[in-house]
Amino acid sequence: MNIIDIIRKKRDGEKLSEDEIKYFVNSVKSRTIKEYQISALLMAIYFRGMDFNETFFLTKYMIGSGVKIDLSDIPGKKIDKHSTGGVGDKVSLIVAPVAAYLGITVPMISGRGLGHTGGTVDKMNAIEGYKTGLNDSEFKQILKNVGCAIISQTENIAPVDRVLYAIRDVTGTVESIPLITSSIMSKKLSEDLDGLVIDLKVGRGAFMKNMDSAKKLAEYMMGVSERLGVKIKIYFTSMDSPLGRAVGNGPEVLEAIDVLKGGGPEDVVEVASALADGMIGLAGIKRDVRKVLKSKKAYERFSEMVKMQGGNINNIAIDQNTYEINSERGGIVQSIDAYKIGMAAVLAGAGRVRKEDDVDYGAGIYILKKEGEEIKKNEPLAIVYTKKYSELLKRQIIDSFEIKNKEPERKSRIIEIW
Amino acid sequence: MNIIDIIRKKRDGEKLSEDEIKYFVNSVKSRTIKEYQISALLMAIYFRGMDFNETFFLTKYMIGSGVKIDLSDIPGKKIDKHSTGGVGDKVSLIVAPVAAYLGITVPMISGRGLGHTGGTVDKMNAIEGYKTGLNDSEFKQILKNVGCAIISQTENIAPVDRVLYAIRDVTGTVESIPLITSSIMSKKLSEDLDGLVIDLKVGRGAFMKNMDSAKKLAEYMMGVSERLGVKIKIYFTSMDSPLGRAVGNGPEVLEAIDVLKGGGPEDVVEVASALADGMIGLAGIKRDVRKVLKSKKAYERFSEMVKMQGGNINNIAIDQNTYEINSERGGIVQSIDAYKIGMAAVLAGAGRVRKEDDVDYGAGIYILKKEGEEIKKNEPLAIVYTKKYSELLKRQIIDSFEIKNKEPERKSRIIEIW
Repeated sequence: MNIIDIIRKKRDGEKLSEDEIKYFVNSVKSRTIKEYQISALLMAIYFRGMDFNETFFLTKYMIGSGVKIDLSDIPGKKIDKHSTGGVGDKVSLIVAPVAAYLGITVPMISGRGLGHTGGTVDKMNAIEGYKTGLNDSEFKQILKNVGCAIISQTENIAPVDRVLYAIRDVTGTVESIPLITSSIMSKKLSEDLDGLVIDLKVGRGAFMKNMDSAKKLAEYMMGVSERLGVKIKIYFTSMDSPLGRAVGNGPEVLEAIDVLKGGGPEDVVEVASALADGMIGLAGIKRDVRKVLKSKKAYERFSEMVKMQGGNINNIAIDQNTYEINSERGGIVQSIDAYKIGMAAVLAGAGRVRKEDDVDYGAGIYILKKEGEEIKKNEPLAIVYTKKYSELLKRQIIDSFEIKNKEPERKSRIIEIW
Repeated sequence: MNIIDIIRKKRDGEKLSEDEIKYFVNSVKSRTIKEYQISALLMAIYFRGMDFNETFFLTKYMIGSGVKIDLSDIPGKKIDKHSTGGVGDKVSLIVAPVAAYLGITVPMISGRGLGHTGGTVDKMNAIEGYKTGLNDSEFKQILKNVGCAIISQTENIAPVDRVLYAIRDVTGTVESIPLITSSIMSKKLSEDLDGLVIDLKVGRGAFMKNMDSAKKLAEYMMGVSERLGVKIKIYFTSMDSPLGRAVGNGPEVLEAIDVLKGGGPEDVVEVASALADGMIGLAGIKRDVRKVLKSKKAYERFSEMVKMQGGNINNIAIDQNTYEINSERGGIVQSIDAYKIGMAAVLAGAGRVRKEDDVDYGAGIYILKKEGEEIKKNEPLAIVYTKKYSELLKRQIIDSFEIKNKEPERKSRIIEIW
């Protein structure tokens, strides 16, 4: 078997066999094929796609390229939640302690943010002292004691995904459904889970711009998960506008804590409650998540987790330089463009353009006027926390808001549940 | 400008601007982009193509990545001939001295063979002592004295092509008309030519399998050449069956010498005469090439060139182990599959599977029965010269011949002339 034939085969639109996919993954792991051959095959996959079987085998051998975490000595169900990425999406910080409080183990291995979307690991790093890089025994110890832990990807989990993702990121081959499926599922299904809830973001601030592509991705993820014996539930949620009012790492942690204390913006509470309900439902548990939030019991779990991971919950990064962004017209906010706000947050320092960029954990945007809220001319629409304020940043934020003299249509953020 | 945006643009089917193509070529030259980004873009070009303008700019900046040979102090017209690659194609060895004898300067910079097709540089290396690696002043000295020289590509001619070709070869991105055009034309148009004759091989033993793709390639090559002020004439010639009787480096040199001495197989004489006629025609000369061959004057030129490049024309590699391959049936040879014979020659040791492979210059095949010739059962079809005879090699040769009890259709090898 040789990689040139495999590239040509996929280039010509043929299906790759299980053996060919295994050979590719093993060759990536052993570094016996060149990176330019990897990227050529990824681009051919981008154009030609992969059917479900090919995607399944790719995922399977990517899982096999690393080690699965062994959580068998922790009793009870292990359920995780994954979001395909959005703007203002702090839901993981809420659902992990909620599910833990209700008796589930949540071994949450997360990523960093890139481009306009944030990453859970970056958000946790906004908490002073919080360590996301734990070894297996530290991770398991916290899971046993608290029920949830949020850490960053370790060296030995799906190492081939790290190689492929780094290349995809710089070769225009990220937006491929089989490649997205195998990347997400190889990491998540290395966690020794009983169940997985996916928050599949759809809309202008998400990777999936419409329901057609989102459903195709959902079919692949669902099929792969079920064939590997892990229950899965998929929520299609809207990412046309940012979730909640806070965007940026430190600001989002503060908002997640508001929700964990029974407050916070209604859209965040809606999505977090639905996803937490999905997680506990996969374990056969039925409880009113909103009541759990009101009881502040989940907040206690979150505090414990932060403490055990070395963090000081009373010191969350927030930039001291704040700027009010005033509206140039009066009316009612119709919509806020999640992509534009996400890029504004990057300009403010909260995100990365390239994966090696540094992040300012205290930078971000606080949206004062959400959809349906009235605004007067010259009244502030948003506050920016940033060390690098600019006219461009101000313009980007103003342009994110659509303001008209009518009531906007109100829609649930939850589009569909599979 | 950044390479990721350029990859994405081409991936999404957009045209690249002159500046973007210039940036790409310069970045390849300065090694400021990664090889996996080069291959991703090449694969995107494979799928999306390039229009004429993009192909022109790619070629132009590839030429500009190196130096053009300066032949301005050599009087007279400089005309070269290039073949897109076939099996048994020893025509360059014939036309170069013919054109030189008729007063033209032929600065022939050639390549090595890969896969089933041979390369002119390998053929010349079958002559004991022949040096293909000359520096500019040696090259020009021979051109001045003899009128023709056949050398291998130098470091400083279109260096970006060398990088791109090496990557294309191992990433399934060779068969792309804009990439083939820019690769051939960037090298040839660095030769300071007045005119160029292209032998565009078409058929099962060629890169271009049919006239549709061949014409598309011809349009691009013609357009690029004319826009850069170099006259071009394109011959579409058939490569369904091998050209002549000899396949393999040493054997082909011997056959070329037969033709240069006024003999040799008629199909080789036909193609060589036509192409030489094209070359001298571009310089405004009209002579009967067949008469020149009969006069043996071109052979004298060839001998001089070989001598000046250090070669001993009386010592041409030919393997001493010979094997007769007998026909398994009687009848008339209908056709000989050029691709299969080319691969048989590779098995015999005459060619390369990978570009770093060694070549046995003395290995090859001599076809005893060409199209239209009668054969009896158990009579020899061909002779193999090889150090590694095998049953597989024998089978490959027998399978190349189609033998039936009828007269085959006779066709000229020259399909069309532009």
